[in-house]
Amino acid sequence: VTAVPHESATGALEVLRTRSVVRHYTGEPVEESQIQQLVTAMLAAPSASNKQAWAFVMVRRRALVRGVRAFSPGIIGDPALILVACVDNRRAADDPHVREVATRCVAMAVQNFLLAAHALGLGACPVSSFLSEPVQLLLDLPPQVDPVFVVPVGHPAGRRQSSQRRSAEEVVHHDTWTA
Amino acid sequence: VTAVPHESATGALEVLRTRSVVRHYTGEPVEESQIQQLVTAMLAAPSASNKQAWAFVMVRRRALVRGVRAFSPGIIGDPALILVACVDNRRAADDPHVREVATRCVAMAVQNFLLAAHALGLGACPVSSFLSEPVQLLLDLPPQVDPVFVVPVGHPAGRRQSSQRRSAEEVVHHDTWTA
Repeated sequence: VTAVPHESATGALEVLRTRSVVRHYTGEPVEESQIQQLVTAMLAAPSASNKQAWAFVMVRRRALVRGVRAFSPGIIGDPALILVACVDNRRAADDPHVREVATRCVAMAVQNFLLAAHALGLGACPVSSFLSEPVQLLLDLPPQVDPVFVVPVGHPAGRRQSSQRRSAEEVVHHDTWTA
Repeated sequence: VTAVPHESATGALEVLRTRSVVRHYTGEPVEESQIQQLVTAMLAAPSASNKQAWAFVMVRRRALVRGVRAFSPGIIGDPALILVACVDNRRAADDPHVREVATRCVAMAVQNFLLAAHALGLGACPVSSFLSEPVQLLLDLPPQVDPVFVVPVGHPAGRRQSSQRRSAEEVVHHDTWTA
């Protein structure tokens, strides 16, 4: 078992703790080397039974970014790129539970992507509010490839929003609900 | 906007890249301070519209760990603790899309938990294969609190398994599916 060095552990815990949603971006592009690092982190997410029933589209061409944004009320700013994260149903058995589990794996991959973006000084936001069919058509996705998140990414503009959270005492229970 | 220091970024990217599933554990307990760090990381995950329609149970009492394990074919080894990660439907509107989005937020919180565990030298595994109703009864969960993952955690025993992955070329598309 490979242990993580102490400094890496501290850095990782800081990145986990300080990530927050970024909705506004400067016009600066995202570098190719950063895109590689985002992809590496994303594809290292857990995959139930190692099915990897997922597919991702990195949209950078301006006309397509504008197109996806036009169908995504949840995207506020003007991002340098948009990740479209999908379940690939061709690799998931035709069973509602299997498909739901595949969706959770995509969510975990998106979370890795968001954390890597934060580590690299980029900002991003996981968006579920978008019109699936127009995005599928625009990006020429096969009919069985279902987008589950669109994720705008760019260099952060303005202040980072951190959200008020319920306390750990309220949401974390020990041993049983009431114990 | 707070930027992440360079060393922290490097550490975080390493933790994202090297996390893998750990299914076997030594008998060593997980320290209280580590549990605090796992919880902090978990609750920093994104939450759609900041609804936080989630609830978590950290199961450590031996009889309860054995109980959850008995109803979870996906748990192989004997963990020091089991996180039971739930959607709290009392905070999610009665709408299938809202509930699905809440489930994705729970998956992201679990991913933060797994990454923090890896950073701390612990091993864990996200398990979707368990019987929901007996787990709800055993832990005295309210009827609208639905467990979506059980996550065994402990100090890793034996070798870490890393899984074969599809290549980035196969799963990541650029601009459009075929471009």
